This record gives sequence, C-alpha cells and structure tokens, in this order.
Amino acid sequence: MLLAVFYWWGMTRASNLLVWLLGFLWSALPLAGSAQTLADRLGYPAGTKMVIIHADDLGETHSVNAAAIKALQSGTINSASLMVPCPWFPEIADYANSHPDADFGLHLTLTSERVYYRWGPVAPADKVPSLVDKNGYFYHDWEQNEHINPKDVEVELRAQIERALAMGVRPTHLDSHQYRLIMSGKELFDVMVRVAHEYKLPIFVTRDWFADYPYLQQSLGPQDIVLDHTVTIGPEVAPEKWAEFYATALRNLKPGVTEFVIHPGFDDEELRAATRERSTWGAAWRQRDYDFFTSDQFREIMAQQKIRPITWRELARKASPK
Amino acid sequence: MLLAVFYWWGMTRASNLLVWLLGFLWSALPLAGSAQTLADRLGYPAGTKMVIIHADDLGETHSVNAAAIKALQSGTINSASLMVPCPWFPEIADYANSHPDADFGLHLTLTSERVYYRWGPVAPADKVPSLVDKNGYFYHDWEQNEHINPKDVEVELRAQIERALAMGVRPTHLDSHQYRLIMSGKELFDVMVRVAHEYKLPIFVTRDWFADYPYLQQSLGPQDIVLDHTVTIGPEVAPEKWAEFYATALRNLKPGVTEFVIHPGFDDEELRAATRERSTWGAAWRQRDYDFFTSDQFREIMAQQKIRPITWRELARKASPK
Repeated sequence: MLLAVFYWWGMTRASNLLVWLLGFLWSALPLAGSAQTLADRLGYPAGTKMVIIHADDLGETHSVNAAAIKALQSGTINSASLMVPCPWFPEIADYANSHPDADFGLHLTLTSERVYYRWGPVAPADKVPSLVDKNGYFYHDWEQNEHINPKDVEVELRAQIERALAMGVRPTHLDSHQYRLIMSGKELFDVMVRVAHEYKLPIFVTRDWFADYPYLQQSLGPQDIVLDHTVTIGPEVAPEKWAEFYATALRNLKPGVTEFVIHPGFDDEELRAATRERSTWGAAWRQRDYDFFTSDQFREIMAQQKIRPITWRELARKASPK
Repeated sequence: MLLAVFYWWGMTRASNLLVWLLGFLWSALPLAGSAQTLADRLGYPAGTKMVIIHADDLGETHSVNAAAIKALQSGTINSASLMVPCPWFPEIADYANSHPDADFGLHLTLTSERVYYRWGPVAPADKVPSLVDKNGYFYHDWEQNEHINPKDVEVELRAQIERALAMGVRPTHLDSHQYRLIMSGKELFDVMVRVAHEYKLPIFVTRDWFADYPYLQQSLGPQDIVLDHTVTIGPEVAPEKWAEFYATALRNLKPGVTEFVIHPGFDDEELRAATRERSTWGAAWRQRDYDFFTSDQFREIMAQQKIRPITWRELARKASPK
C-alpha cells in the first residue's frame, strides 16, 4: 500500500507533502506484533498453526552438529542456528556451504557456559574486554549485567557475523545464545536490533516475551518479524515426561507461528564430557530432544493437528514489505 | 666443581679475578649436548637406557585427554604436553590441578591443522597478525615461514604460558606442536629458547636433530637439557606394523635418554570427525598408539630390556646445575 501511495504522490509531484504523509503513515502503523498478525502478513488464514522446529547451539560440539544434521536430513527439524565462536563451527559452516537451502541462523554467543570445554570471542579479546574473563574465555555466566559494555557487544556481534559470511554461511536469522541479548536490558537488545537491521536479518523474538521485557516491543519496528509464541522445555520437566511435554505442547498449539527451541545432541562421550558438571542442557537432555523430534509420535501429531512447518527463510520472504 | 671454585675464590676475596675466571670456565664448557652426556649429568652409568613415554596434543580434543589420562593412570605413559589454545584445555588443566605431580609440559601451538575443528591464538588476534588466517584461526599449515613474525610468536608463546599458569598448570617442560619452533629457522627457535629460559623450563630438543638444524645447538647453552634421541612413528609404517615398529625401537634403544613422542587417543565419534580429512595422526592412528603403550607387550619389553622410565621433572631436577 505504501508503494501505491508513493507512486500516486510522485505523479502529482507534491514531494514535500509526500514526506510528511509517509512519516505520518509510518508512525500510525502498529507497533511490532501488536495488531496485524504474522499469519496475516504471511498470507495464511488466521487460524493456521505454524511451527519452526529450531535446533540451537550448532557448532558447539561435534555431537550437536551430528545430531542436528541427522534430524535436518530426516526432515523433522527445519531450522537451526550456529555458534560462530565455537571450535566446531567450521564443520557446520562446511555443511552450510554444501546445503545452501538449509535454514541456518547465527546463534549470537557471548557466554561460554561450560567448565571443561570453553571458547572465547571472535573479535580480538582486547577489543571486547568486558566480555572476557581473566583467562580470555567468555564468562560462564553474567552475574550482573553492568560490567557488559554494549560497545563490546556490538564489536563482537559484527565479528561473528563477518566470520560466518567469510566462511560462506548465508544466515537466515539471528538469535541469542541463552537469550543474553533479549533479557539483559534495552541497551543490549538495541545493539542486536541495530546489527540485525544493518545485515537485513530477522531476529528471533516472540510476543510471549513482551510483558516481561517491554523494551523488546519498543525497540522493534513494524517491519520486524515477531513470532507469536515459543515453546522450550525446562529443568522442571522430568526426563520420563519429555515426550509428553512436547506432545501436549503440539496438541495445544495456538494459531500463528510458534518456534520450538530445542537442543538435539547425541548422548556420547564428547557431549557427556563437555556437559558433565550439570545435567541441564546436558548430553542426556539433548538426546531426549533428538529422540522426540525424530520420532514417529512427533510426525503423527504434526499430521493429526495439521501443523504447518515454516522456516525463517520463508518468514522473511513472505512477511517482508512488498 | 664450579661451586667449589666459587667458594675458594670467595674465600680469597679476589672477586674481579673470579668473574673473569667464571666467564672463562663458562665459555670453555661444552656446547649443548656435545660432550658430557645427559646420563653423566643425571648421575646414571653411561649405558643406562632411559625413556620418556610422552603423549602429545592434550587439550586438543576430549578423546585425546581421556586416552592420555587413562594411559597415565595405567602407569605406561609418564609425560605429556598440553595445547593451551585448544577448547579442551580447561579439562586437562583441571586434571593437572588435581594431579600436581603429573609430568605436564606445554605443547606450544601455532597452527590449527584440522579442517572441521579449529582454534586460534590465546593472544588477541590483532596482536599476532602474522599467525592468523583470514578467519582468525591459526593457519592450517605454514606454507612458507617468511610471513611468520617472530615478535608475534613471542607474544603468543607468553600468552599461552601465562594462561596455563593462571589456570593452575605448573609445566615441567616446553615442546612445539608439529615442531614448528624447532624446524622453522634460528630466529623462531631463539624466541622459544628466550621464553623457556625466562620461565626456567627445559625444551624438548634431541641431539638427533643437530645435523639437520645446526642452529639448535648454537642457540642452546651448556645448562640446557638436550635429550639423546627421539622415536616417533610416521605415515610410512603400515597400521598392522605398528606394534612391531615400537617393539623394535624399544629393543634397539640406545643408551641415554630417548623421548617416544606418541599420540594416544580413542578412535571415537569426536576424534574421527575432528580428523576425518586425512588419516595421518587421525583417530585410528591414535588408537593404535594408545593400544600399544597400554599393552602387556610394551610392559614386558620395558622390563626385559631394563629400560628406565624418566620424566621431565626428574630430568630438570637432576640435570640442573648444582
């Protein structure tokens, strides 16, 4: 519609008025995720249930890469994001090069949360001093966010994206490892938004988060894609309830686009060793995710519930301004 | 003897003459490894056969750490060196902290020779520009040595040693991953010697190399430890001849100190993936090394041949000036 308005006013050559009118239209557009549904923007009927089955943490270990590749090739997970600073990134970048249609985003990473296996920034450590611990790795955790310098974050995010591009990865979206850039305040989220806009990449954000983090909505514009919902499993779910949790979530899926944030991996020597200090998001956890999302049960529920898989690539193509 | 001279001259207070005489004695001492044998310095009879059974590349992968730890604990390998820039260094540093008697050196690392699994410098990449490729990793290989700046090497070696110390590792010796610092000319070797002297750490050098790399002998002083021989297996040995190669080497061992440079690892998913672009020093290769050096055959030959295991810690203690 905007383009039509532009064309008509261009014809009448009332260009000053045009600028004013465009500004007015822009400010009157709904805030991100507030009125026009994503289904509308995608051109699907309002009741359509869509899912991104999204594997996180590719590049972190070989076990995670191998499980994600196997699940991608079985056609059950349909999207994933890659951790550029991690030592197994070259393996998944190589896969991305030979599978250019894979729906791979970048899992922007600012922490190194394990104990026996660690990584640090892509940018030179002395250029991002607030992000690294005394040994030069990313921090295990951010105890308090105050010490994190947004300028360092911006330098590091750009370095991660540039390394990915240099290694032939063409990312479809950006998301944030451990949600650090989502949940650490407006200043860091604004860095993520600025970088994402510059590289013309959608960010994984869902309306579910707006109540707790109102700055998300404030910082996003009407052109930004905002998912409707997200589902991710937590430590409160007992291992024997894993399949039941996901099955219930799929049966109760709401209309719109929901991203399932999952963490497939193989419960093998490497992953057990890399995650052995705690079971949360550990090797057995990731094997359970792999097992459910490559199961017949998962496929059957998807078919029964008429759930439509959708990728970030498809979202970006269909939801972008015409 | 020097101490006795010192004592006597101290008694006579002829201190200027003393300085001159000490200087004269120093310059008249044999060059490294040329006359007095290491066995003499260690206080063993000349015919004694001693071996360091030394595992390389700890920290590179979990598989290598796990195999080396198991072999160390079985008492067959007795020394190893750690790759500080690698992602699994924290695991082996943790082991070193809880096993302070382990004979662990630092395997100074300036290359990242694999394709799917990579690492970069410990120093900020912009402080060691000649060491990193366009993606920020160490080079796979040094095609020509000319581009390597010795100043960058010195910065990186210090960074590796300082990270190890900060993480509680107390190294017993230094050696060089892929012999880069040994075989790339006098200038780089001199950097290694300077840093080693500063940290008071012996360097793995053997007289076997003097003919091909005469600068090694020129750069070392009479106080430096120089091993007599080294044995390492190469791609020319067929897999089925592995045990025979080592058995023959042990049965033909010459008197003095010989370091067996070996590469134990487990032939598992992680190591197969990390090394899959070529079989040399790959997963099966490392499993063969593990298998021989934890075998009864190895123990029996050691006993039959009356070979004495010796560590770098013991060498440094016994061979250092009294």
